Amino acid sequence: MAVGQCDFPVMPVVPGITLGTACAGIKQTVKDDILVFAMAEQASCAAVFTQNAFCAAPVWLARANLAHAPRWLLVNSGNANAGTGDQGMQDALKTCADLAGLVGGDAKQILPFSTGVIGQPLPADKIKAALPAAVGALAPANWDKAARAIMTTDTFPKGVTRTILLDGAAVTINGISKGAGMIQPNMATMLGFIATDAKIGQPLLQACLAIAVEQSFNRITVDGDTSTNDACVLMASGASSAPEILAGTGHYRLFADAVMQVCKQLAEWIIRDGEGATKLMRIVVADALSDAEAVQVAKTIAHSPLVKTAFFASDPNWGRILAAVGRAGVAQMVLADVQIFLDDVCIVRNGGRDSGYTEEAGQRVMDQEEITVTVKLGRGSAVQEVLTCDFSYDYVKINAEYRT
Amino acid sequence: MAVGQCDFPVMPVVPGITLGTACAGIKQTVKDDILVFAMAEQASCAAVFTQNAFCAAPVWLARANLAHAPRWLLVNSGNANAGTGDQGMQDALKTCADLAGLVGGDAKQILPFSTGVIGQPLPADKIKAALPAAVGALAPANWDKAARAIMTTDTFPKGVTRTILLDGAAVTINGISKGAGMIQPNMATMLGFIATDAKIGQPLLQACLAIAVEQSFNRITVDGDTSTNDACVLMASGASSAPEILAGTGHYRLFADAVMQVCKQLAEWIIRDGEGATKLMRIVVADALSDAEAVQVAKTIAHSPLVKTAFFASDPNWGRILAAVGRAGVAQMVLADVQIFLDDVCIVRNGGRDSGYTEEAGQRVMDQEEITVTVKLGRGSAVQEVLTCDFSYDYVKINAEYRT
Repeated sequence: MAVGQCDFPVMPVVPGITLGTACAGIKQTVKDDILVFAMAEQASCAAVFTQNAFCAAPVWLARANLAHAPRWLLVNSGNANAGTGDQGMQDALKTCADLAGLVGGDAKQILPFSTGVIGQPLPADKIKAALPAAVGALAPANWDKAARAIMTTDTFPKGVTRTILLDGAAVTINGISKGAGMIQPNMATMLGFIATDAKIGQPLLQACLAIAVEQSFNRITVDGDTSTNDACVLMASGASSAPEILAGTGHYRLFADAVMQVCKQLAEWIIRDGEGATKLMRIVVADALSDAEAVQVAKTIAHSPLVKTAFFASDPNWGRILAAVGRAGVAQMVLADVQIFLDDVCIVRNGGRDSGYTEEAGQRVMDQEEITVTVKLGRGSAVQEVLTCDFSYDYVKINAEYRT
Repeated sequence: MAVGQCDFPVMPVVPGITLGTACAGIKQTVKDDILVFAMAEQASCAAVFTQNAFCAAPVWLARANLAHAPRWLLVNSGNANAGTGDQGMQDALKTCADLAGLVGGDAKQILPFSTGVIGQPLPADKIKAALPAAVGALAPANWDKAARAIMTTDTFPKGVTRTILLDGAAVTINGISKGAGMIQPNMATMLGFIATDAKIGQPLLQACLAIAVEQSFNRITVDGDTSTNDACVLMASGASSAPEILAGTGHYRLFADAVMQVCKQLAEWIIRDGEGATKLMRIVVADALSDAEAVQVAKTIAHSPLVKTAFFASDPNWGRILAAVGRAGVAQMVLADVQIFLDDVCIVRNGGRDSGYTEEAGQRVMDQEEITVTVKLGRGSAVQEVLTCDFSYDYVKINAEYRT
């Protein structure tokens, strides 16, 4: 189940980037579950990671290895290698060493990523056994396979591509992501991998990624649970014939805008494929005193189980939205100044139901698969948007049966 | 559905307090939905109210009238009179005036309370028509009927009674509450009414209530949604022959302890009857740096949809508990210092699964209806407990169908 049409796009190759997948049989033996990225020698690599205090062993290791000019990523699905203590770190180090031996590189130049069930030992031997096949498969055209290899409870592979022209030379940006549950990313989501052939220095690439993530992956939530394994990587191979992208230039603005678009679309795919999702809700909070205040109110609405179940039922129960805004912790908010809309239908004005509102008008919007909830706080001029999905029987079913 | 045996107790009368119920047909015509409390002339009355910024009209009015030595409470279920703008306040004032006319009192001495659907006009005329029956029914022995009259999605009436002896004279404390959904009280829950025949001044009664509520109703959550209508009232008729209770005395400690027990039991009933609940979870966070930190971690676990669905499935998926602790926003928490227990079974120690843990041991605890999750943070000595329930298909069903 997913909200809307979510076809995987035709992804061009990204010169200087190759991908290979294989089946290690970590959780099931019928799908590829490991993915290796290889970057050209001159590549830059930026990454952001979860803010969960108990982040997984691979997150610790990838964060440390980011300083060593990474050349390879090693990703597995089916096991998060989180809550696995010292053994988890040993296993992460071992899989990196195994890959380093195969590709003839330094293990410190490898960033490891894991996603899946928390608290079970990583089957490092199974990964070692499958690594030669993944390395042997390294090729530029494997984006579809890569997007499938990182899926867990996702129901479709997620990919986005953009191409921009810099002085007439093409620069391609490809991205893939996985999501589904334990989704309220804080700095990044588990997992997003974006690759480009742009030439761009690491510090600028890192800044570009941080800004894009803040407005995309950090503005979505399925269930309010920030994962132990969130990460988003932006690789730049430098293989394009376009000139190097420098800070403060028109080229940078073009590039940063395209990266932002890729991140936003990947984030939206994650919500469209949220566990059990039947509806996509854009929660827009406007006229706030600050961006932080707007996000705070939007996330309170987006996390309310009562709001989410009402949307699942297509019930225009706007009282629940009102109650969520009221408990969002914003000081000195005045109900009489607040307006709430379902798409363009005003439901709350002057402290109560808008005089022009009818249940029929509200119902018409609620029957849609995609709905924008706009809350105008009447306090300032800040606007922020958070994407979320509804709470359905299937959310409970998927998460009640996850480990079985 | 409810967790455990939840029989309504035999409630003694509270001298100086009478109750009467009637059917106004606010939402359905087959059950009593209004309740009037009358207090003896010399009574004191304390109350705490929701911190939701958009609290309902009756909350505003009750908060104001608390200063006027209240003599009556007027409660209705089936409609929250919240998000109803100016008309909502007019309706609340009108129902108080109607009751004042019937009992020959001052409308300012009446505290109004409403619970039910948000955003629909209060049918004040229906309430007016039913008030004579409720006033005519005023009698000391109607506690069971009163507990039923305030129910909304509750599946059983909730009552608790305690009697203490002060210098050989009995003092009775009766309490009733309703809960079910939109339950993360912040200062009180919607609705708790407690009555005693103790003689005690209003300021001391208010302090006693505030302390009890903080450790009872403010330590429970069903879904993290703080209602617009939460309120808890403690009435003291002064009709007992026991001496007046004064601050700092042994009598006060006895009395305050009994009020605390009543509040805690009422709060626990609310969780046992949480919407769709099949399990009761006590989340104990120990060895925290402060009470606030302990509550913050406990509530993060208690609100996690992934934790709640795992409990519904009786799945010892402790990785989700670990992930919730990690995202609770506690600075400089060290995973290696954290221990997590399901009842007395240690599941996490030294940063990963405890070496002595077996899935069988975890499963044995998870199969129970009542489970204690203990998280030791290894940072200090503060301990706090939060009660919650699981997230089931029925939670979604109840809230998807609430207005139909």
